[in-house]
Amino acid sequence: MGQPPNDADRGSRRLARLRHPLHHFPGRYTRPGTAPGDLTVPPAEHREPATLYLMDFEAGHLTEKDACSLAEAREYLETSPDPTWLHVHGMPDKGLLRSIGETRQLHTLALEDVLHTGQRAKLDAYEEQLFAIISIPELTADGIRLGQLSLFLGDTWLISFYSGQADPLGVIRERIRQDDSRLRRNGTDYLFYALIDMAVDLVFPVMEDLGERIEVLELTVFDDPSREALDEIHALKRELVLLRRVLWPERDMLNGLIRDEHPLISDGTRIYLRDCYDHVVHALDLVESYREMASSLLEVYLSSLSNRMNDIMKVLTIIATVFIPLSFITGVYGMNFDRTAGPWNMPELGWSFGYPLVLLLMLAVVVILLGFFRRKRWI
Amino acid sequence: MGQPPNDADRGSRRLARLRHPLHHFPGRYTRPGTAPGDLTVPPAEHREPATLYLMDFEAGHLTEKDACSLAEAREYLETSPDPTWLHVHGMPDKGLLRSIGETRQLHTLALEDVLHTGQRAKLDAYEEQLFAIISIPELTADGIRLGQLSLFLGDTWLISFYSGQADPLGVIRERIRQDDSRLRRNGTDYLFYALIDMAVDLVFPVMEDLGERIEVLELTVFDDPSREALDEIHALKRELVLLRRVLWPERDMLNGLIRDEHPLISDGTRIYLRDCYDHVVHALDLVESYREMASSLLEVYLSSLSNRMNDIMKVLTIIATVFIPLSFITGVYGMNFDRTAGPWNMPELGWSFGYPLVLLLMLAVVVILLGFFRRKRWI
Amino acid sequence: MGQPPNDADRGSRRLARLRHPLHHFPGRYTRPGTAPGDLTVPPAEHREPATLYLMDFEAGHLTEKDACSLAEAREYLETSPDPTWLHVHGMPDKGLLRSIGETRQLHTLALEDVLHTGQRAKLDAYEEQLFAIISIPELTADGIRLGQLSLFLGDTWLISFYSGQADPLGVIRERIRQDDSRLRRNGTDYLFYALIDMAVDLVFPVMEDLGERIEVLELTVFDDPSREALDEIHALKRELVLLRRVLWPERDMLNGLIRDEHPLISDGTRIYLRDCYDHVVHALDLVESYREMASSLLEVYLSSLSNRMNDIMKVLTIIATVFIPLSFITGVYGMNFDRTAGPWNMPELGWSFGYPLVLLLMLAVVVILLGFFRRKRWI
Amino acid sequence: MGQPPNDADRGSRRLARLRHPLHHFPGRYTRPGTAPGDLTVPPAEHREPATLYLMDFEAGHLTEKDACSLAEAREYLETSPDPTWLHVHGMPDKGLLRSIGETRQLHTLALEDVLHTGQRAKLDAYEEQLFAIISIPELTADGIRLGQLSLFLGDTWLISFYSGQADPLGVIRERIRQDDSRLRRNGTDYLFYALIDMAVDLVFPVMEDLGERIEVLELTVFDDPSREALDEIHALKRELVLLRRVLWPERDMLNGLIRDEHPLISDGTRIYLRDCYDHVVHALDLVESYREMASSLLEVYLSSLSNRMNDIMKVLTIIATVFIPLSFITGVYGMNFDRTAGPWNMPELGWSFGYPLVLLLMLAVVVILLGFFRRKRWI
Amino acid sequence: MGQPPNDADRGSRRLARLRHPLHHFPGRYTRPGTAPGDLTVPPAEHREPATLYLMDFEAGHLTEKDACSLAEAREYLETSPDPTWLHVHGMPDKGLLRSIGETRQLHTLALEDVLHTGQRAKLDAYEEQLFAIISIPELTADGIRLGQLSLFLGDTWLISFYSGQADPLGVIRERIRQDDSRLRRNGTDYLFYALIDMAVDLVFPVMEDLGERIEVLELTVFDDPSREALDEIHALKRELVLLRRVLWPERDMLNGLIRDEHPLISDGTRIYLRDCYDHVVHALDLVESYREMASSLLEVYLSSLSNRMNDIMKVLTIIATVFIPLSFITGVYGMNFDRTAGPWNMPELGWSFGYPLVLLLMLAVVVILLGFFRRKRWI
Repeated sequence: MGQPPNDADRGSRRLARLRHPLHHFPGRYTRPGTAPGDLTVPPAEHREPATLYLMDFEAGHLTEKDACSLAEAREYLETSPDPTWLHVHGMPDKGLLRSIGETRQLHTLALEDVLHTGQRAKLDAYEEQLFAIISIPELTADGIRLGQLSLFLGDTWLISFYSGQADPLGVIRERIRQDDSRLRRNGTDYLFYALIDMAVDLVFPVMEDLGERIEVLELTVFDDPSREALDEIHALKRELVLLRRVLWPERDMLNGLIRDEHPLISDGTRIYLRDCYDHVVHALDLVESYREMASSLLEVYLSSLSNRMNDIMKVLTIIATVFIPLSFITGVYGMNFDRTAGPWNMPELGWSFGYPLVLLLMLAVVVILLGFFRRKRWI
Repeated sequence: MGQPPNDADRGSRRLARLRHPLHHFPGRYTRPGTAPGDLTVPPAEHREPATLYLMDFEAGHLTEKDACSLAEAREYLETSPDPTWLHVHGMPDKGLLRSIGETRQLHTLALEDVLHTGQRAKLDAYEEQLFAIISIPELTADGIRLGQLSLFLGDTWLISFYSGQADPLGVIRERIRQDDSRLRRNGTDYLFYALIDMAVDLVFPVMEDLGERIEVLELTVFDDPSREALDEIHALKRELVLLRRVLWPERDMLNGLIRDEHPLISDGTRIYLRDCYDHVVHALDLVESYREMASSLLEVYLSSLSNRMNDIMKVLTIIATVFIPLSFITGVYGMNFDRTAGPWNMPELGWSFGYPLVLLLMLAVVVILLGFFRRKRWI
Repeated sequence: MGQPPNDADRGSRRLARLRHPLHHFPGRYTRPGTAPGDLTVPPAEHREPATLYLMDFEAGHLTEKDACSLAEAREYLETSPDPTWLHVHGMPDKGLLRSIGETRQLHTLALEDVLHTGQRAKLDAYEEQLFAIISIPELTADGIRLGQLSLFLGDTWLISFYSGQADPLGVIRERIRQDDSRLRRNGTDYLFYALIDMAVDLVFPVMEDLGERIEVLELTVFDDPSREALDEIHALKRELVLLRRVLWPERDMLNGLIRDEHPLISDGTRIYLRDCYDHVVHALDLVESYREMASSLLEVYLSSLSNRMNDIMKVLTIIATVFIPLSFITGVYGMNFDRTAGPWNMPELGWSFGYPLVLLLMLAVVVILLGFFRRKRWI
Repeated sequence: MGQPPNDADRGSRRLARLRHPLHHFPGRYTRPGTAPGDLTVPPAEHREPATLYLMDFEAGHLTEKDACSLAEAREYLETSPDPTWLHVHGMPDKGLLRSIGETRQLHTLALEDVLHTGQRAKLDAYEEQLFAIISIPELTADGIRLGQLSLFLGDTWLISFYSGQADPLGVIRERIRQDDSRLRRNGTDYLFYALIDMAVDLVFPVMEDLGERIEVLELTVFDDPSREALDEIHALKRELVLLRRVLWPERDMLNGLIRDEHPLISDGTRIYLRDCYDHVVHALDLVESYREMASSLLEVYLSSLSNRMNDIMKVLTIIATVFIPLSFITGVYGMNFDRTAGPWNMPELGWSFGYPLVLLLMLAVVVILLGFFRRKRWI
Repeated sequence: MGQPPNDADRGSRRLARLRHPLHHFPGRYTRPGTAPGDLTVPPAEHREPATLYLMDFEAGHLTEKDACSLAEAREYLETSPDPTWLHVHGMPDKGLLRSIGETRQLHTLALEDVLHTGQRAKLDAYEEQLFAIISIPELTADGIRLGQLSLFLGDTWLISFYSGQADPLGVIRERIRQDDSRLRRNGTDYLFYALIDMAVDLVFPVMEDLGERIEVLELTVFDDPSREALDEIHALKRELVLLRRVLWPERDMLNGLIRDEHPLISDGTRIYLRDCYDHVVHALDLVESYREMASSLLEVYLSSLSNRMNDIMKVLTIIATVFIPLSFITGVYGMNFDRTAGPWNMPELGWSFGYPLVLLLMLAVVVILLGFFRRKRWI
């Protein structure tokens, strides 16, 4: 009835799961009262040095520099007439960020947002620049982990920062490397779209994982309302709350991109962004449906618990109700009244068929009670 | 108390029901990071070759070709001045889709949507083309199954794709075959309306089925809160969640069709679409009402469970409370105190009427307790 | 504990109540795929022939024809320059409907809506015509029954259809018969208002009935959470869901009438419609309040059930907890250890005051346990 | 366990409380089908004759007439060039109302609304007149009672009607009597504001009372989830539903007054009305917060009930589980097997230390079971 | 089972917590009917004299006067051409407030709002002045305490009042003291932003505290659904309700500041306010997520209670169900039928192996019952 090792195990798994969505919250906000645009880097938990990836491309040619130096990056950014994409993977330090910011006059408030990960998706339009933040969910063994993709879009350049562990942007780089790809033929606004599209689409594997977990629960929770199931339903709800918190602002951001005709985004790209918007809305629909299913599962869980309790109580009641009267009868004939003191004192004990008669009486009681239970549909 | 075969049976039915709404989810999204408009056909589960139906009609004449070849279809689509309807039933392969797309410059993003079934209803207006997606619920033995109807509308042509198992478009073809039908006299925009209207109206048989299942539950759940009822309520809620997810975007789509005056839709047809919009709103109303009733049913279910538990506990309590004191009395007179050791040791055992007196005492206890229960309104 | 006749009775009442709101649902929708405006009359359940009432009036004169013929009606409708009101009570057959429709070019979609009762309230503006549908709740012995009032308004004529059992329009005819009534002095738009106003106001007697049922429940459910109460709360919720479904579209319809300045509605009448709109909003407010009260009642019901269970358990626990130790003591002294085998074998049985001492011991146990229960505030 | 006098007392208090919010509902609506503007006075429950208060004022002078006659009132209203305020306290009869209406051409629909108390707050703009209705909650011993304040505002006059028991307008009259008060210096629109402000601010004492009742509940419901607490929570929810129903339309009304620049309201007064609007929004905020707290309290109540049940069950289980095995042991040694029939028949009874050994065995059972309970953390 | 000291302790802690959010409610509203702008100071609970801080600054110089006199403050406010900031810490008395108000013609309604703390955040635009109210949550040992920051912004001056205990504005003064700070270089509108930004950011430490409390609950409530946990969940919900009530109007206020282009706010500052708005929206997101988690925790709590109950009942049922039949058997052989009266009277008692056989019978019963429980998965 108690399996300590499993409990501990479950506890630690739960702990791990809990750690993530909330734990990096403390790094999310600046110390109240400090000046805005203060590029103090939050205390690094598992800081790795940031890596710079540079791609300068055009339909005809492609210059690619992995782990390039800051100087190289600045040169391309400031001089190249072709679309240039600088991607910074990992958390940059203050100096690096400021240097990159200076090449293209990135706003300090936006740079501050790059450092404070865990932001809501948003779009800020500055003159001749667009700044966007979008979260990318990474599905790790411990649950969902959010990476923040920050994008600065100019006319011929795009600077991106990604804070997560994985490198989801590899597929985009691969597509750029193909000579005939649409990414090569279009400008940075199409690249901007491609990155956002990728971020949005990475929600779906997470959704699929959640969907499968819901399916598993639906098959088990009816018949086995265990503590683990409750734990899992609760974890599901948490993650759906998190996902919704991620997706809602993305919807607003994309809606803003489609509606407000910013000069940096071409009409052709805007059609693609509309498709992207449809995906976010679809994902939100699914999140809402999953939330309702999770709520419904909890109700089923509680109902199953009540059902179980009813079952337990029924067994107890049937056993107790059948035997209590029988025991009473045996009690009666276990009394020690002095049969010699008078003829009315327990004459039954002296009958030749007293014992069989009592057994028959008991049998009758059992039959009557079982009939009563059958009428109540308990058995 | 345990009927294994039924349990298994119920389990498999539940499994079948669960399979559908969620199971074809994995096919719903492109691999994150792939280029948009990539016409990779999702791995077919039960692929049948797509069939082409062509109808070229006018008030006076009708050319109909079932299972026509791609070449024929292209010829009519590209040259016929009369309204031409090409319908593709089943999942087309990549080549077929691309060929059809080329005849009338269908947008690749739209073609991609044709392949990824399970999309939300939507309306995309391209220049000189309208692209619409709408789901058709099919009521199968295993529950609701969604087929996706994709419609491309041009000035004199309409191309439709349907991914479901059944062929709900047969009735429309039948109506076109009648010489004096309004479908023959009007253009492709009226056909466009007729297809959407049919898709919307096919929700109502599903609603009726749900309504009947709710009625059945209302009659049974009060008196018999069984596990099957809980299962059924949960299944109902799932399907209502699904239906709402289908209907909400249809409402938006139809609203867009009515509000934005697209040149391809004539004013006369717009009045009919308004009627269609009313139907969707009506269906949504019903879904909301059914959802509330399903929630209410669950509350009734839980209340009935509690009521049952009360009943069980009452029986146990009455039986136990009546017999426990009686058994105590028999216990007392079953003690073996040595009556010879002193006059105070159980003198009752030696009274001539000790036994009848004890029986009377027990009767009195029973009467008093039953009176107490009656005052409590338990019996 | 079981009163079969009442159960059956309750069942049949519930059945009757359930029958109504949902049962005429099947007649509500056309067969999917059929042409719009198809005037197929739904299979009549309790068809009575439709009756025509004609009133042609003006400040000075009034021509009234009850149960008039179709020919008469057409003549007045087509030629009379004065306000003419044709009212059709009961479900008209296809021919009658088509004939009436032809007199004033009523749109076939609107005529179709006349036949398919159970529609949401709506307002369709055609050229030189307004078409409105509004439901009238009739409070019958079996619950709420909805009748559908369909109104066609032209410049000098108004054609109405009513599908219900009762004749709520009698009071309006009565008011027209009075020479100095405002209905006589104003045109058909004022009559149009008067009919809608009547339909809206007929919601209030239903609301009052619901309010009284809620009051009754509030007085009983605290102390007697019976099955009947649960049944009644559930029925209340159903009817409130239905009423809300009726009122919401009425609000939209009236809002449309006030906001969009249709030429057929004069400014004076619009002020009256504003009053009408206030009534609908008031009714909706009440419905929402009642819904919350019904939900609150259910919570009270469940809480009372739990309270009851606690009471039952307390009684059981007190009785059992008091007597179980006592019975144990009697059990001990009912053992048959051979007192002759040694001095340690149950010497108490041989004490002169053994029996009284044991009785005292039992009394002490009882006193201690009762004290414990008092401290727990169970008694 | 049952205290009849308290029950009855509680019942009657509850009854009194219930009576109010719903009871004057029947007077709220006109008989369906009657002509609008029909000034039929609803059957008076506790009719007192209406009293007229007249104030004609200006910065310099003040004419005040309490309980003035209708003739006097008409004279001032029709001729005085200074701001004139006629206040009617109590329910006016048909003649009085019509006479007052005629002096300044008040619309009959508005006069009808004066009679049908229990209306939602609203604002109707007629030419050169504003008509407003607002409810004033009166906190009586039996709960909240709503009085209706109806206001007609013209350029130099204001006519008000109040239907409640108390006279909350006394403080306003007092302020007018002060020579240097802002009310004297400003026109009737400022008086209009002052009356609405007073009506709005009178919600706050009610809110405070509710707040205190919530606080009391929060201190008691955790430890004593009594029936009275459930009753009180339910009453709270009812009153909050009522208050919200009162405040929502007030918010809309004030919003309309601020947004639509009606010529009768000066810009200066509009700034004050904005303050008034802030108060209503604040009150609505509080109502929403209180509603959530009340819901939370109910959840706490139910949880406490469950907790109690657990406590009760634990006691029962501990007692029963400890004594049932002990009683079994005594039962074994109470059996009457014939020790003389063979050496295997209950030889323990013949051991010299049989009895002490059995007592030790029982002690061991008790110790083991208590250890088990301690491990389960039940004791 | 009862630890009185802890209970009392818990009670007092709860009391302290409850005190705050609601307790200063009574001071929140003016006596209904009093004139607006009446600067009656609410009865002070813990009045300390208000302190004035003056800062007159410019890029080059800084004049700072702590605890300056009213006369000095007026002189600077009325004459200095440089940005001047007067901050009043603590609750000012009537005279002081009026004097300050006269220096720059502050509106009396706004001054009244300064005194009545506990207001919702709001923004009132007067000519050449902006008046804003915003709450600052202070995290004290007893829970969240709200201080009210009132801001009057003119072209070259800013007057602020703060009603709380702590002095959160110290960091701002410190930043002004730095020669090269942006606060020194920009005007009073930037200071206005800095103060609002600080107020908004002070919500995050409170959020973090709540987040940690939720994490703790998530780790404990699954395994130990104690009364303290319920208490804590309820307290969490209260505080989240409070926080949401604080944040919603802040969002509206900031939205108004960004949208309406008030001349006192420069375009540069408006960009910073947009950042501030993002923070409020982020905080609201978190509050909503936390509310859902708190609700989910309560559900988990209730489920865990039910689980516990099931556990308790299972133990009781197993023990009772096993021993009740055994006791019955012992009862049977404890009956005193006279074996000499006939051969059918309990012959078993005379068998040589009667006792061992009965013991075996009992063992068989135990084995069968344990098997039954195992099949039910109770053990």
